[in-house]
Amino acid sequence: MAKSKIRNNSAILLICCPDQQGIVATVTRFISEHSGNIIHLDQHVDVEQDVFFMRIEWELDGFDIKPDDIKEVFRPIAEQFQMDVQLRFTTFTKKMAVFVSKQGHCFYDILSRVRSGEWHVELPIVVSNHRDLEDVVKLMGMEFHHFKMTKDNKAEQEAEQLALLKDRGIDLVVLARYMQILSDDFVSHYPNRIINVHHAFLPAFPGAKPYHQAHLRGVKLIGATSHYVTADLDAGPIIAQDVIRVTHKDSISDMIRKGQDTEKSVLSHAVWNHLQDKIAVYNNKTVIFE
Amino acid sequence: MAKSKIRNNSAILLICCPDQQGIVATVTRFISEHSGNIIHLDQHVDVEQDVFFMRIEWELDGFDIKPDDIKEVFRPIAEQFQMDVQLRFTTFTKKMAVFVSKQGHCFYDILSRVRSGEWHVELPIVVSNHRDLEDVVKLMGMEFHHFKMTKDNKAEQEAEQLALLKDRGIDLVVLARYMQILSDDFVSHYPNRIINVHHAFLPAFPGAKPYHQAHLRGVKLIGATSHYVTADLDAGPIIAQDVIRVTHKDSISDMIRKGQDTEKSVLSHAVWNHLQDKIAVYNNKTVIFE
Amino acid sequence: MAKSKIRNNSAILLICCPDQQGIVATVTRFISEHSGNIIHLDQHVDVEQDVFFMRIEWELDGFDIKPDDIKEVFRPIAEQFQMDVQLRFTTFTKKMAVFVSKQGHCFYDILSRVRSGEWHVELPIVVSNHRDLEDVVKLMGMEFHHFKMTKDNKAEQEAEQLALLKDRGIDLVVLARYMQILSDDFVSHYPNRIINVHHAFLPAFPGAKPYHQAHLRGVKLIGATSHYVTADLDAGPIIAQDVIRVTHKDSISDMIRKGQDTEKSVLSHAVWNHLQDKIAVYNNKTVIFE
Amino acid sequence: MAKSKIRNNSAILLICCPDQQGIVATVTRFISEHSGNIIHLDQHVDVEQDVFFMRIEWELDGFDIKPDDIKEVFRPIAEQFQMDVQLRFTTFTKKMAVFVSKQGHCFYDILSRVRSGEWHVELPIVVSNHRDLEDVVKLMGMEFHHFKMTKDNKAEQEAEQLALLKDRGIDLVVLARYMQILSDDFVSHYPNRIINVHHAFLPAFPGAKPYHQAHLRGVKLIGATSHYVTADLDAGPIIAQDVIRVTHKDSISDMIRKGQDTEKSVLSHAVWNHLQDKIAVYNNKTVIFE
Repeated sequence: MAKSKIRNNSAILLICCPDQQGIVATVTRFISEHSGNIIHLDQHVDVEQDVFFMRIEWELDGFDIKPDDIKEVFRPIAEQFQMDVQLRFTTFTKKMAVFVSKQGHCFYDILSRVRSGEWHVELPIVVSNHRDLEDVVKLMGMEFHHFKMTKDNKAEQEAEQLALLKDRGIDLVVLARYMQILSDDFVSHYPNRIINVHHAFLPAFPGAKPYHQAHLRGVKLIGATSHYVTADLDAGPIIAQDVIRVTHKDSISDMIRKGQDTEKSVLSHAVWNHLQDKIAVYNNKTVIFE
Repeated sequence: MAKSKIRNNSAILLICCPDQQGIVATVTRFISEHSGNIIHLDQHVDVEQDVFFMRIEWELDGFDIKPDDIKEVFRPIAEQFQMDVQLRFTTFTKKMAVFVSKQGHCFYDILSRVRSGEWHVELPIVVSNHRDLEDVVKLMGMEFHHFKMTKDNKAEQEAEQLALLKDRGIDLVVLARYMQILSDDFVSHYPNRIINVHHAFLPAFPGAKPYHQAHLRGVKLIGATSHYVTADLDAGPIIAQDVIRVTHKDSISDMIRKGQDTEKSVLSHAVWNHLQDKIAVYNNKTVIFE
Repeated sequence: MAKSKIRNNSAILLICCPDQQGIVATVTRFISEHSGNIIHLDQHVDVEQDVFFMRIEWELDGFDIKPDDIKEVFRPIAEQFQMDVQLRFTTFTKKMAVFVSKQGHCFYDILSRVRSGEWHVELPIVVSNHRDLEDVVKLMGMEFHHFKMTKDNKAEQEAEQLALLKDRGIDLVVLARYMQILSDDFVSHYPNRIINVHHAFLPAFPGAKPYHQAHLRGVKLIGATSHYVTADLDAGPIIAQDVIRVTHKDSISDMIRKGQDTEKSVLSHAVWNHLQDKIAVYNNKTVIFE
Repeated sequence: MAKSKIRNNSAILLICCPDQQGIVATVTRFISEHSGNIIHLDQHVDVEQDVFFMRIEWELDGFDIKPDDIKEVFRPIAEQFQMDVQLRFTTFTKKMAVFVSKQGHCFYDILSRVRSGEWHVELPIVVSNHRDLEDVVKLMGMEFHHFKMTKDNKAEQEAEQLALLKDRGIDLVVLARYMQILSDDFVSHYPNRIINVHHAFLPAFPGAKPYHQAHLRGVKLIGATSHYVTADLDAGPIIAQDVIRVTHKDSISDMIRKGQDTEKSVLSHAVWNHLQDKIAVYNNKTVIFE
């Protein structure tokens, strides 16, 4: 469905290893000696943990190692520096599933970006525990999968959802205000590949009804947080956060309305960075090479 | 010391009462019938609590009730509607004491506003548990009072501080990164007249070392909160909040440095609103008639 | 199409007149004497121009004047104070037409708000000079009207558009990144009822290709501006503005992508305020009773 | 006067050259082969202009080239890639002069940062065309130099100012709301070393009285811009910009008051980046390695 814009043909290395001398020199020489032209290079050192991070992107045109061989040829360097290495190609198209419940604001925002080609991604299926968005999903030519959730059927339903995701080759699950808590087992199948948006400025107001909590406390800003989902509810690595100003005049329903704008922009911002392979995760935190 | 700008000669009524028909009509007719010209009128209804709030400001030139008599003449209306009424005059100059510890960023910000006449206030004394800012305070011609705080002398020192504040006729105490916790007794002498700034976006990260907590959690925004001090630590009515963006590149000391900009602007914003008599407090929340 | 939420049954008066004593008292007494319960009251005095503005909203339940008679009964007050008066009812549903070209981001944002019932409005028709969004418009059950624009056919096409808008009873025209300049004649049919979004922080970068201009100048923020359309291009009364941070790393296409998020939020914010009857216009500026 | 915090002992290379393969590899190998530990590396390619930028910072402890010899040993690389190279040392303390007029808000903000040691800089002299800030400058132990400016004495006074700056070894001139236009000749002595703050969001509202212009136009945000001073008034390379929200309620004097907060934070942000050697300038734009 996505009519993606023309993309350059590049490779990306995401590297994480103990900090030590010579890493940048070694990696850049590797690319340079094989006639690769570096487009982006960003590195970060966590000086407290002595951990080194790098994201390097270079053009494959003219690069004298075939894409399939890069990992192998790079292996000695990776071993020398004890690197955790991820290799990505910008021409690869990720497959994304969106999980929704009743509210559509995040979904429409995603839909708009997918259809315009802003995002280089395929969105074959939408999963929901309600039928409110079924018509628009089907109108847009995507599959809509309804899974009614009860107290008793969670394990079975999740098993079916996982089978569906596997069958469709899904790389990324986006929870677009999906109001179900995923089981630890479900989460374990997609480590750092499930992105949620929580409707509060975490760690303030985790859990249910954050706008009610915010209204009661009388805060002057409300926020939203997108994060990778982990076994701990609302406690995964934070990818993006933003806030919006409120006053005493704002009722809870005003807060909900205003907050939705923040939710959708924060979620889409996080998904964008994930799709661009700009996120490294460690220690329950994110390094984002923007 | 303050060379204040020329101010209009106005009266302000801050009203809080059960919501009912005819309040605005009655109050505005009262002012109008006595030839007062309304400059500002703002009202708010908390529909959940059925509480009505109003701030009304009118020119005293031409008003046919003498300032000292207004409260008495207005009494029947106040009683009819069971109003909690506060009457203020814009020509009255509040007296403010600033409490500091070692860090000066909030203090300099306040100093700049007082000296430029931006704030209509007197700042006769600065109180501190350290001597770091003594020289600048004295250079500026203000009294500097040093109270060394130990585990054992808190009660006595606070008693002396209270005596000092009383002697100097202080109306407002501003805690400009004062790193001591005031006792409940101290606080009870200045209800809704002690303004603190906490270096986090409350209710996230209350207590000590919020920037360390924020760094550990990997948040993407850090904040500051100014609030009236109550017996509950960091839990008083919030007056102002703001945030600033951080990334994985920011160390704890970067967060401290960036956060200071937010601390000082948030504190000064809160003090400004207090000095303008724009804040009503109820239910541990603020109504700010900006 | 819109499934609007339950709304209270209220009347709104938007008043503009020369500033003078007794206006608020007179208007609020009028409502109070006829047993109306005021929900919102906001007023503003432009002290440089001596112009008074008020927006007052009150419940019609219990109000002892029939809606159709309010204007007549209020007339003596309006004449006494030389008021320009607009009377609105919250139960009235405005009819909106959206004009688009090729880009869909603003349109999807509007669509999401209309379908969720966030906006109390009908959206029967979408007008475009291109066919890119025809499928989604029709899928959503709205009429899509294509008007191909050439150098020579503008007058005729606009005449047909106006006839269409009139036939469908349109109250508000929203230009959602519509890339045609409306003629003065067209604009004159909908004074203060055509809302445009310009993709720059006006008055910076008016006219064509503002992101290219912004990139060339090396600004650190890019913005968007929604405004009522007047005969002067990009110079009508500003309703809402916002900005987003950019750096040297952002290419023109990054700026376009980031800017779209600001464009859609600024446009929707402006339309929301218009639909709530919260905007007064004078002197080519807006007073927004938020 | 400044009591600076302990700083690491590092060298910084700011490099600008035509884009070509192998630059990063060559530079990082140079540092690595001489036992330097890279702390920060940031690079940027302007793909439209084919210009490459890099900022690289490495520890001098253990580096086997003496600081004074680095430039010479690096020369072959610089020539090979036609680099424009700037070498800086973090232990070097820049000398800054601040120019002020009557308003003190930016000056106090700078003063606070210098005195706290946040900024690694010396501030020996303050220059002004008015005497308003003389007392505070002298109280703080700095020299205050008053230059009364008239229509006729500009050339002479600037000559004296330049002599003073030269005598005191000034590296950076900060115009902290200095309300005089510097001559082209003056500017030519400090290319990219004079930082000004303009009280508007450039390119909107250049020249005099921007808040008056903003009020007249009815904008919803006002801004401030810090930039290097060039021969073209308010048109030099932009370093930092920010905005603050205003409404119809804000008079011109409210805008001035609110705008001052933005002016001081934007100016200090720009000076901070300059002091950290994080700014490269080309094509009348800045690359800021934050």
